[in-house]
Amino acid sequence: MLEGRKIEGSGLGGGPRLSGVAGQLPPSPIRKLIPLAEGAERRGKQVIYLNIGQPDIPLPDQILDAFRGRVPSLLAYSHSAGLAGVRQSIARYYRGLGIEVDPESEILITAGASEALWFVLRALLDAGDAVMIPEPLYANYVGIVRMVGGRVVPVPTTIAQNFALPDIEAFLSRWTPEVKAILICNPNNPTGTVYSSEMLADLVAFAREKNLWLVADEVYREFLYGGVKTRSLLTFEGVEDHVVVIDSFSKRMSLCGVRTGLLVTRNRQLYDVLLRMGQARLSPPLLGQYLVQLILEEFSWWIDRVVEEFGRRRQVFLEAVRGLPGVRAPVPQGAFYVFAELPVEDSEVFCRWLLTDFLEVGGVDTTVLLAPGAGFYVSGGRGCDQVRIAFVVGVDRLREALEVLARALELYPHKRESAVS
Amino acid sequence: MLEGRKIEGSGLGGGPRLSGVAGQLPPSPIRKLIPLAEGAERRGKQVIYLNIGQPDIPLPDQILDAFRGRVPSLLAYSHSAGLAGVRQSIARYYRGLGIEVDPESEILITAGASEALWFVLRALLDAGDAVMIPEPLYANYVGIVRMVGGRVVPVPTTIAQNFALPDIEAFLSRWTPEVKAILICNPNNPTGTVYSSEMLADLVAFAREKNLWLVADEVYREFLYGGVKTRSLLTFEGVEDHVVVIDSFSKRMSLCGVRTGLLVTRNRQLYDVLLRMGQARLSPPLLGQYLVQLILEEFSWWIDRVVEEFGRRRQVFLEAVRGLPGVRAPVPQGAFYVFAELPVEDSEVFCRWLLTDFLEVGGVDTTVLLAPGAGFYVSGGRGCDQVRIAFVVGVDRLREALEVLARALELYPHKRESAVS
Repeated sequence: MLEGRKIEGSGLGGGPRLSGVAGQLPPSPIRKLIPLAEGAERRGKQVIYLNIGQPDIPLPDQILDAFRGRVPSLLAYSHSAGLAGVRQSIARYYRGLGIEVDPESEILITAGASEALWFVLRALLDAGDAVMIPEPLYANYVGIVRMVGGRVVPVPTTIAQNFALPDIEAFLSRWTPEVKAILICNPNNPTGTVYSSEMLADLVAFAREKNLWLVADEVYREFLYGGVKTRSLLTFEGVEDHVVVIDSFSKRMSLCGVRTGLLVTRNRQLYDVLLRMGQARLSPPLLGQYLVQLILEEFSWWIDRVVEEFGRRRQVFLEAVRGLPGVRAPVPQGAFYVFAELPVEDSEVFCRWLLTDFLEVGGVDTTVLLAPGAGFYVSGGRGCDQVRIAFVVGVDRLREALEVLARALELYPHKRESAVS
Repeated sequence: MLEGRKIEGSGLGGGPRLSGVAGQLPPSPIRKLIPLAEGAERRGKQVIYLNIGQPDIPLPDQILDAFRGRVPSLLAYSHSAGLAGVRQSIARYYRGLGIEVDPESEILITAGASEALWFVLRALLDAGDAVMIPEPLYANYVGIVRMVGGRVVPVPTTIAQNFALPDIEAFLSRWTPEVKAILICNPNNPTGTVYSSEMLADLVAFAREKNLWLVADEVYREFLYGGVKTRSLLTFEGVEDHVVVIDSFSKRMSLCGVRTGLLVTRNRQLYDVLLRMGQARLSPPLLGQYLVQLILEEFSWWIDRVVEEFGRRRQVFLEAVRGLPGVRAPVPQGAFYVFAELPVEDSEVFCRWLLTDFLEVGGVDTTVLLAPGAGFYVSGGRGCDQVRIAFVVGVDRLREALEVLARALELYPHKRESAVS
């Protein structure tokens, strides 16, 4: 569970008091097992990291060489909304998706999707306002909502229904006048679920009726498997003034480090406010903009290659999961995550065990780092037997990781009662 | 004056309501004349841009070539505090300044100084809290303070005293229990003033007595002229738990676009909170970190070259200012700005005239873009006859700009009464 830790300023030699918001920020659930993994490595063991949503695919030489030639000698601020030419390239990319966007007044380039989401939530929420988010949810949403003094109202999704978008009754029953926005991630991190067009249409109608903002994180847009289809929220009519799309090239181009994200909204009043925020931080990072533009204009096949690689990895997972006794895992339809239920009492204890005792008991040299499920819930007590597994290593390594996991589940002493039998 | 514009959400077809904070964000005072400058250029005129604090100095080929060779093919997230090796290089740079900083627990790399300041203000202020800032002030401070729901309490400095740090009486008389922090910029943007060690010591004592946070923006640290000296707030004893330094390589390495800033604090509790904010946005931009490290480790002379060039420009200004009738301008001691009083009724009107009528009346092909002074004040009515001039073009171009300005002041029809005589 994503608990904040209340931090008290002593005012007595420990410095002045911190803000109330400071005490509400959750530690990263994904990163908290890292020290144990590092400890295992220091003891000569290998750890396969499946805990963080970071593509591991290096850029091909031809892209890298072309980029090196484009690094300019004058590394100046770009426009606060990003370089005009890059926004035009992004508008062409959106046109390729069947979506017309004005690069002058509807696109703002940001330091990753994270900055885009922070700008948007700051523009939409005051302290005490709330945002509804299907749960389990991407943990950093909670931190960013709390940084603007807001509150997350989780709307539960279940593994039994493959974490599908909840029906409108579920939203309606949790709605209060403090709710100003709905935030969805589609395709979904952490569940790998893709929301159906019908469900999205219902959500759009609900947001319109209640006059809510609709924020859609669509950074996994291209990661769709097995013929599944969905729609960008930018394609729905009648809610143009409600919708903001959060986007990023980090995943689809395997460029997490360069921090090139963006937001798209057709609400001009909102855009004007977001641009002022952009001006307050001067400009988004420059070099990532050049690299993204280069790929969009000259190497657009690269996105397909990245997505294909993740498709192969998903296939490996689908085959291997049958060999994992007691594991319940929906077939991932999108993104590059599986949110699985394990036959264990407490998945965080299991994840720690994988990095410690398992290496002795199992007599193995290799283990895996998974993200415990409870870290993706704000509702206490949920997700305790779940984990998020990210397909962020190549197929051979992934196969090895899943074999390790199978062996670990055999040996683990604290299996769930019903699973022990 | 940095007025916010109240933005009302109509709720009637215009989309849902925006946050209250959204309506408090000031437009950028530096950028609002840009459309007029662009208009002049479209009419075939040349505009010399002295309005924005952006070094215009390209990187030498040897640095650029070395950097190109270091761009890795896997552009992954770095640690949320920045790459460990880069933090070590930064700690060595600080050691060269005589300041010991622990790269593991006291340095956090950010997307420019802007992100550093936003993290810090978010960690220190709740809605309704206030921060004292000497005025005139860097306009973006106001936007960032308002984004956390805070309030700026300006502490006036005057051109008659070369914009020196106000004495403690001035701080004391404006202090209220809502004040949680003091924010200074030293060397100062927009005034070019460098604060004396004695005045800083008084400020430090005041902050300690009132148990306030002390935030120092020291991005212009190396830009000191004519033998003037000052101290980093990190060198004062007894306030280690109060001090946060905001820093950036944008200015001293002429790298504004890559967005590599940082913050330094010895307050571990504060650092823990700032790191959580860093985790919520995953990582700072990667490529700028490599470039900064390369320069720190192998081309540290580059900082000296950049500073020397600005010293030459300052000299040009000092010589030219004598030829500007009715202009009162303190001798800049640091940074690369002059905050000057012009013999005009309204400097914003004058700045607009420079970009429009002057080009006809003066029969000239070249004009200058300056930043009107009122944009650097939150106190209404102040700075109306002042401008900020940034030395961000080479010496020949700067000489030309100052000749243009002299001619413009001769021809301008709306000079101040006392100046007309």
